[in-house]
Amino acid sequence: MSLLVVGTMAFDAIETPFGKSDRIIGGAATYIALSAANFVTPIKQISVVGGDFPQEELDHLASIGVDLEGVQIKKDEKSFFWSGRYHMDMNERDTLDTQLNVLANFTPVVPDSYQDCEFVMLGNGVPAVQHSVLKQMKNKPKLVIMDTMNFWMETAMDDLELLLKDVDVLMVNDSEARQLSAQYSLVKAAKEILAMGPKYLVVKKGEHGALLFHEDQVFFAPALPLEEVFDPTGAGDTFAGGFVGHIARTKDISFENMKTAIIIGSAMASFCVEKFGTTRMREISKEDINARIKQFVDLVNFDINII
Amino acid sequence: MSLLVVGTMAFDAIETPFGKSDRIIGGAATYIALSAANFVTPIKQISVVGGDFPQEELDHLASIGVDLEGVQIKKDEKSFFWSGRYHMDMNERDTLDTQLNVLANFTPVVPDSYQDCEFVMLGNGVPAVQHSVLKQMKNKPKLVIMDTMNFWMETAMDDLELLLKDVDVLMVNDSEARQLSAQYSLVKAAKEILAMGPKYLVVKKGEHGALLFHEDQVFFAPALPLEEVFDPTGAGDTFAGGFVGHIARTKDISFENMKTAIIIGSAMASFCVEKFGTTRMREISKEDINARIKQFVDLVNFDINII
Repeated sequence: MSLLVVGTMAFDAIETPFGKSDRIIGGAATYIALSAANFVTPIKQISVVGGDFPQEELDHLASIGVDLEGVQIKKDEKSFFWSGRYHMDMNERDTLDTQLNVLANFTPVVPDSYQDCEFVMLGNGVPAVQHSVLKQMKNKPKLVIMDTMNFWMETAMDDLELLLKDVDVLMVNDSEARQLSAQYSLVKAAKEILAMGPKYLVVKKGEHGALLFHEDQVFFAPALPLEEVFDPTGAGDTFAGGFVGHIARTKDISFENMKTAIIIGSAMASFCVEKFGTTRMREISKEDINARIKQFVDLVNFDINII
Repeated sequence: MSLLVVGTMAFDAIETPFGKSDRIIGGAATYIALSAANFVTPIKQISVVGGDFPQEELDHLASIGVDLEGVQIKKDEKSFFWSGRYHMDMNERDTLDTQLNVLANFTPVVPDSYQDCEFVMLGNGVPAVQHSVLKQMKNKPKLVIMDTMNFWMETAMDDLELLLKDVDVLMVNDSEARQLSAQYSLVKAAKEILAMGPKYLVVKKGEHGALLFHEDQVFFAPALPLEEVFDPTGAGDTFAGGFVGHIARTKDISFENMKTAIIIGSAMASFCVEKFGTTRMREISKEDINARIKQFVDLVNFDINII
């Protein structure tokens, strides 16, 4: 009945046109958990951190319903670190530094207490590591959702192709969808990718919204037009957290319910970008979330009669 | 009760990654009329062409309800000509050639029979020329909609600023909105532009859809995900034609009805890009249009409950 989340818990250092952060808490699984915990708990987390990862961060995650039994703590090592710079067009970014640290030899172990998870969210990471989590599950999950990125298409395509056969929902951004399919048109890209294994494809387009493809159907969710996108780091993971949080809460894996999940993911991502790092995700209440979802309804709602 | 349209009627030569056209019929007012005539007639056209403009094109426009009394025919001159090239990302284009020809000395004259027009669509053109049409109207129109482009911001900004004070709805693309306002955020850009005169701002984002801003409200319409965007020439004008055609048909200038108009404009533009030039706009039926509008409803329609 609960949700299993795999991914990085890490430190980030971020530069945007609006400011610069010190080493702050980041990582795909951190953002996913912070977002999904608004919809469903417990979240069964699988990750690895070094001795430098603050205990109060782990305590905070535990306090909002994140089960940390599957999070390995390597006391004598350092946590994964990423540093990047965004420009005015935040759909592109430069990586300034990547230090794998604990990630270099990460072998995830699925605790027995996680075996009942029906929903599995594989945050961006080494495809073989993502796959090893799935292979450890004794029962086939109801829905497996995976995020990946261009780096793995370039360095681990064979592993990625194998993994895709076991994935129900793939989430990538538009340039990654084009790279994975070798098609420029996103409609054609979706057809190719849906033939690789996933039954559903979510294409994230940043400030331009997100598309959901399934068989011959397509659904579009806009991004909320914001006065300022302060820091897009984690927006995609926060989107994934809202999506999978809603699916796990409702246990409804129909295309219709995935549309709703996409809107909720978009709403959660619109909070994430308002402040540096995870700051905004720690502040928001259920009331904030409901008000934001209402804004999405207003943003796209229209009446029409045929002519 | 009818609709006045001002703009170019011209020849285009177009290259896209999918092919290359000869000299074909184009021009903002041509696309606007071909689109709007599906919703409202007569359309009172104001434009100028040379002796080289085919009589059968004029006859075709007349046959679908376009009144050509305001179209000057300069028998000894040539029509406006534009040539351009698009790449895979069709949001950008290179202009290869521009020959003003008859446009160089165009002085529009509003015929008496056009004076009853309640809705005025100023297609992209010299701001002073657009303004002179408005100044010739004896009664204030119910709604004035204007399209413009970055070229006029660079060469005729004073005229453009004066004109904006007499415009109700401004339509520009995202980079033009940024240039006009000197703001990167489209939300901030909209605030600046709405302070310049227009009560409504439509920001066209090509394959990423369109935004409608009014006071503190915002509405978003997606573009239809297409397998192939064959030729984007005229898509913005076709969008404008669908928008103003719906408004003129319903005579309802509320924000709610403008949302519907944006969806209809988006639907019309989605046809335009399917073939070179105006080809597709001459083929489509009311049934095609209604089916396409239904696709837009399916594309964005979702159910949601607050959490």
